[in-house]
Amino acid sequence: MALTWSRKRMSVRFKNRILVFGGRAMPKVTDAHLEARRQQILDAATECFARKGFHRSTMHDICQMAELSPGAVYRYFQSKDEIIEAMEEQGRQHSAAVIDAVTSERTETLDVLEGLVDVFFSKLEDVRDCAVHIELWAEALSNPKIKQTVVRIDESIRNAFIQRIVSAAQHRGEINAALDPDAVARVMMAFWDGLVLQKTLDPEVDIWKYVAVMKAMIGGTFWQKTEAGRS
Amino acid sequence: MALTWSRKRMSVRFKNRILVFGGRAMPKVTDAHLEARRQQILDAATECFARKGFHRSTMHDICQMAELSPGAVYRYFQSKDEIIEAMEEQGRQHSAAVIDAVTSERTETLDVLEGLVDVFFSKLEDVRDCAVHIELWAEALSNPKIKQTVVRIDESIRNAFIQRIVSAAQHRGEINAALDPDAVARVMMAFWDGLVLQKTLDPEVDIWKYVAVMKAMIGGTFWQKTEAGRS
Repeated sequence: MALTWSRKRMSVRFKNRILVFGGRAMPKVTDAHLEARRQQILDAATECFARKGFHRSTMHDICQMAELSPGAVYRYFQSKDEIIEAMEEQGRQHSAAVIDAVTSERTETLDVLEGLVDVFFSKLEDVRDCAVHIELWAEALSNPKIKQTVVRIDESIRNAFIQRIVSAAQHRGEINAALDPDAVARVMMAFWDGLVLQKTLDPEVDIWKYVAVMKAMIGGTFWQKTEAGRS
Repeated sequence: MALTWSRKRMSVRFKNRILVFGGRAMPKVTDAHLEARRQQILDAATECFARKGFHRSTMHDICQMAELSPGAVYRYFQSKDEIIEAMEEQGRQHSAAVIDAVTSERTETLDVLEGLVDVFFSKLEDVRDCAVHIELWAEALSNPKIKQTVVRIDESIRNAFIQRIVSAAQHRGEINAALDPDAVARVMMAFWDGLVLQKTLDPEVDIWKYVAVMKAMIGGTFWQKTEAGRS
């Protein structure tokens, strides 16, 4: 796999946002310190949501898990909704950065898709993250603000897929041009969402056997008996 | 689409179970009446779970929605968990019956898959059902009994797929024999689960454009630029 990322690299991406917080007459602390605290809260919230579910977790639980006072936590986030929004935004930035990096690094479409699959699916090794996704989907059903965030971020990732990969590949005659680009992007996201679910229900599921099937379906080696007699 | 089913047909499938209830010195009522009541409660519960979520719905809500007294409801189900179990079991029986019917009616693998896709994906027009699925997945994270039910039923559908379709097609050299049959079945289920999620977030998603992509991926017409120069 060509790409890796770390929490540390993410912090740089949030620098501008942190500087905004810094402008509100807060004590003089370094950006790195602020970002570390913020990440500490997001990590604690992830742990809480995965253990108790989003609905049952309280801000108090999150403070305890983060080992921070309510004052320290509320300085960054006023509510669970704000924490969720930050988590989703972090996910979106992660995804956008990965798509950027892979599409600028590789030229062949199947090679690009392979790169994206390797990065996105490796993340599923962390079943805790998978559980938080499912909590979020359920929360979106009854919480319009969360739903709006989830939909907006899904859309932005889907559009990145469509523009950078699907439409371009259709234009070059690689992906069947009769297919709706939005639907292609949706199926690609479903591969991931579907495995998030299965991995949560059974952490033993082999990600890479699943990925092999997906790659075969995308690359045309799944079905071996066509009119052309390809095998 | 060749297959349709109705609530009415389902009731016949549950006849044996109902007879067991009938054996417990219940007032003399017809099987059809008992089954209608039972279905009335399941429908009401589906409505409640879709509106308020599984966790927030109470047995009281379900009684109100069903317009039945608690006594009438508790005669059939002792708890929300029992209702969920019955819903899942009904889903499993539906799915098994569909797989049975389609595989015995058609012989060509792609034809069988096409038949299954048409039946299973038509169900997603009902966004209420989609929402209940997501609630169930989330509930399974923190409720071991529900998790066990969901896993058991998923497994039984996956095994039906593997045995009746995937392994047979691999044996005939249709589906790439290098792929893990369990992983193939998982990807096929992910197509469905992934769309359940997307349909819930946006009821306007076009199921059939999505299905066209899926069919192209399965049937080898998605990727058009292979070494063999197929197009």
